[in-house]
Amino acid sequence: MSSVSGLENVIAAQTKLSHVDGQAGELIIAGYPLEELAPNATYEQSLYLLWNGVLPNPQQLNELKENLRQHLDLPEITRYVLKEAARAKLPPMDALRMAISTLAVVDLQPQSDSLEANRNRAILIVAKAPVIVGNYWRLRQGQEMLAPNPELGQAGQFLYLVHGKEPDPEFVRALDTYWSTVIDHGLNASTFTARVITSTLSDIFSAITGAIGALKGPLHGGAPGPALDMVFEIGTPEQAEPHLRQKLVDGARLMGFGHRIYKVRDPRADVLAAAAERLFERAGDRSLYDLARSVEQTALKLLEEFKPGRHLETNVEFYTALVLHGIGLKPDLFSAVFAVGRMGGWIAHVFEQLEHNRLIRPQSEYVGPTGRTWSNSSAV
Amino acid sequence: MSSVSGLENVIAAQTKLSHVDGQAGELIIAGYPLEELAPNATYEQSLYLLWNGVLPNPQQLNELKENLRQHLDLPEITRYVLKEAARAKLPPMDALRMAISTLAVVDLQPQSDSLEANRNRAILIVAKAPVIVGNYWRLRQGQEMLAPNPELGQAGQFLYLVHGKEPDPEFVRALDTYWSTVIDHGLNASTFTARVITSTLSDIFSAITGAIGALKGPLHGGAPGPALDMVFEIGTPEQAEPHLRQKLVDGARLMGFGHRIYKVRDPRADVLAAAAERLFERAGDRSLYDLARSVEQTALKLLEEFKPGRHLETNVEFYTALVLHGIGLKPDLFSAVFAVGRMGGWIAHVFEQLEHNRLIRPQSEYVGPTGRTWSNSSAV
Repeated sequence: MSSVSGLENVIAAQTKLSHVDGQAGELIIAGYPLEELAPNATYEQSLYLLWNGVLPNPQQLNELKENLRQHLDLPEITRYVLKEAARAKLPPMDALRMAISTLAVVDLQPQSDSLEANRNRAILIVAKAPVIVGNYWRLRQGQEMLAPNPELGQAGQFLYLVHGKEPDPEFVRALDTYWSTVIDHGLNASTFTARVITSTLSDIFSAITGAIGALKGPLHGGAPGPALDMVFEIGTPEQAEPHLRQKLVDGARLMGFGHRIYKVRDPRADVLAAAAERLFERAGDRSLYDLARSVEQTALKLLEEFKPGRHLETNVEFYTALVLHGIGLKPDLFSAVFAVGRMGGWIAHVFEQLEHNRLIRPQSEYVGPTGRTWSNSSAV
Repeated sequence: MSSVSGLENVIAAQTKLSHVDGQAGELIIAGYPLEELAPNATYEQSLYLLWNGVLPNPQQLNELKENLRQHLDLPEITRYVLKEAARAKLPPMDALRMAISTLAVVDLQPQSDSLEANRNRAILIVAKAPVIVGNYWRLRQGQEMLAPNPELGQAGQFLYLVHGKEPDPEFVRALDTYWSTVIDHGLNASTFTARVITSTLSDIFSAITGAIGALKGPLHGGAPGPALDMVFEIGTPEQAEPHLRQKLVDGARLMGFGHRIYKVRDPRADVLAAAAERLFERAGDRSLYDLARSVEQTALKLLEEFKPGRHLETNVEFYTALVLHGIGLKPDLFSAVFAVGRMGGWIAHVFEQLEHNRLIRPQSEYVGPTGRTWSNSSAV
């Protein structure tokens, strides 16, 4: 037996879904290097790829979209839960966890664990996820929920609900790229949670609800908000060096840099930086993008100076923040937007786990007392 | 790196909570052999033991009970969710998963991750769990929910709600023994799920919601119902041998026998067998108990004959079914009753994980394609 506390070097699953090479800084999504897939694919295309192993042809893509379109409406219980969660001012991740858990009420074949029944559940969850988060955001702003627009795809639908108007195609493209970028990432803690739950042969609603709970944790879902705050605080490229130097002298952590697995540049950072550049360029004002770039360059230079050899490189959060801000989303919403994208990957892992299932049940090492007796206890 | 599919031989945590020795057939709960603790302790005492490392003195026990008493009422959102789940005829485990997830709305210190805030959340969850499952059972039977009775402890409360009348003290004793028996069991899949979710520094509602989802799976929460069905089918001790022999000739599995970890008799079976004997004895009719005993003995003899060397011994489910049937519960409710008892253990593991936290994030091995390009894909 090997003793490990975080299972860092333990292989817990084989997968055809994604490959994270932290030394080389490469991420492969079902055979495609991330930089081939994410700038080009819609979220629906990436979803089909993960669920089927190949990209869809136009007819297959239309079928998937049509299936999703059938399942946009939220059942009454889900709507109620969102309203109550908003009244309690809960963060969107709590509302999403509650809402996905309630979707079992609209399961069409509750007794069946056939592949078809599970595919239906998967479609239902994915279709409703952007509607749940988009409408929850509306409720949190004191607005009414909107009926989803069946003409729109996943990214467009989400932006339509959040902003309450026809989505800008450039925003849609940026969100498709973001969601395709984060759709899967090896056995991260939320994906692993989904697989552990599935390994008991529990249902997909339980697996995804559990995964949302795991992604909610700051050590996983992270904090793209603070990375953006830092850029705003700095304000101008000239302030980057003195501001960041002071932070490092004070021993503060620079948000958006460093990753447990990537020891070189996180490949997602490049893809999202390019998406951010395109977005701000076409919106006619590059200034925030240019500021972020210069903050990044200064941060990397200073990190090498203050923490030589630690290889603290730009991580996914830094440009996530820039892209999501660029499409008009507030930091409070970032984790839930991440969750909606990652959901496609979680579900793909659920199917993969079911295909070659074995209960995931590790051991613990007992380090407590032994030999106590009831008659000697304080309770008697 | 070692490649494993179920993490069987991987130690994923150190714990002071329980020790499962599958070779020796021993289970230690925080220092007490199971057979010392479970026949004597109330659920509240076992809970205090797991959360504090020692059994409570009378004053500490009263404080715990008083704390639990403060939190019996269900918030409106939880009551609504239970009603809707009942309308959709969902199994109690689905309703419990939904209901626990909603409890975040009554978190008194939503922004705090202090030990005190987490202790309050823990109390709140444990206090409400029997009220949720008990009242859900009422709703499923077409009855109205009842207000919890503040005079009753955890086991009494649950039985009061299910049966709608003052609980029989012998039933309460049996349920206290059952819940103290199943309160913790090493790193089983649901407990591991709770620890993985907690390791991201997510919240306790998320961890327990995820654990419920894992326990829901038939490979984990199991099926004590079928073990009981088998006993009823057999009907008389004389029928045990021909009936079971036919089952084994037909290649059927005998429910209630065999366990992944225990290669000798599951120690929980003995404790629950004794609880069942006492229960049926005092109720004035031992016949079902005696029948079960003789089914068990015949099954063990035949299993050794048909599957020599496999060491298929009586597991926890066999006598769980007898005890829970004896206190008037229906098989549809068994998994959720198990969950209410295990909840105390899950929460203890959440606290233990937080004390020495490290993100639990294993590796996957990529076995999919590589080198695909967008321009060669069917999507273009």
